[in-house]
Amino acid sequence: MAEDSPPAQTVLYVCSTCRAGMPLQEGQPVAGARLLAALQNAVETLPEAAESQPQPIIRAVECLSACAHGCAIALARPGSWTYVYGDLSAADTADILLGAQGYCASADGIPPWRERPAIFRKQCVARIPPQEIAQ
Amino acid sequence: MAEDSPPAQTVLYVCSTCRAGMPLQEGQPVAGARLLAALQNAVETLPEAAESQPQPIIRAVECLSACAHGCAIALARPGSWTYVYGDLSAADTADILLGAQGYCASADGIPPWRERPAIFRKQCVARIPPQEIAQ
Repeated sequence: MAEDSPPAQTVLYVCSTCRAGMPLQEGQPVAGARLLAALQNAVETLPEAAESQPQPIIRAVECLSACAHGCAIALARPGSWTYVYGDLSAADTADILLGAQGYCASADGIPPWRERPAIFRKQCVARIPPQEIAQ
Repeated sequence: MAEDSPPAQTVLYVCSTCRAGMPLQEGQPVAGARLLAALQNAVETLPEAAESQPQPIIRAVECLSACAHGCAIALARPGSWTYVYGDLSAADTADILLGAQGYCASADGIPPWRERPAIFRKQCVARIPPQEIAQ
C-alpha cells in the first residue's frame, strides 16, 4: 500500500444471535442483540472529540461459531491480523470500542499489549494472519 | 470474481509454537511443530488420485492466540469465511486434510455440514466472515 493511501476500514463483527448459553426469553432480545445495540448506540452518541478518531464499521453476523465463548466479536481489516474475542456482554461496550480504536490506530492490527483493554488481553479466542491476496 | 476465474488459494495456518498445555521437553518439538510436520509430510506424500484435488497451502504461524484450545489451525481464502479449529493433534492429520479439501471445494468456505469431519463439526473455535475489500 502506498504511504499516502488512506488506511483500510476496520470492521467490528458482532455475533448478534448469541444467547450466551441462556434460554430464549419471549419478547426479549438475546445477549448478542443487546451487545450489538449497545455498540451501535455508543458509536452513534460518541462525543465530538472521539469522533475524530478512526472508528470501526459495526456489522451484525449471524454466528461467529464461538458459541462456547459467547458473546463474541471480531475485528478485521484488509492487510491486518483478525482478532476474535469472547465472553463479552453489553457491559463491555466502552472497553470494546476503546480496544477497537487501538486496532484502528495500529499498522497491522496488533496494538501494543499494554494499550489493550483487559478484555482484549484476557479474552482472546483466536487471531488469524493477514489474508494473502495472491491467487 | 468472474465465473471463469481460477478459485483463490486456500491457506491452512498451523500454530507451530503451541505446547498444547504441556511443559517444554528439551530436544523435543512442541505439539504444534509435530502437527505442522505431520501435515506437511501428509501433503508431500499424497497418493496420485488425491493430488488432483485442490489442496491448501500450509503455513506455519507463531501463535493463533487460541492457546486454551491448542493445537489450533485456521482455514482461510480470499472471499470466503475463515474457520479456526482447536484441540487438535498430529493424530488428526488425515481428518484435517479431508476437511481442508472440503473447504477448498466449497464456494464460500462453508462445506455442507454432514460432509465435514467430526473434528470440524465439534471443535470449531471461531469463524469470520469474508473480508470486505472496500476501503
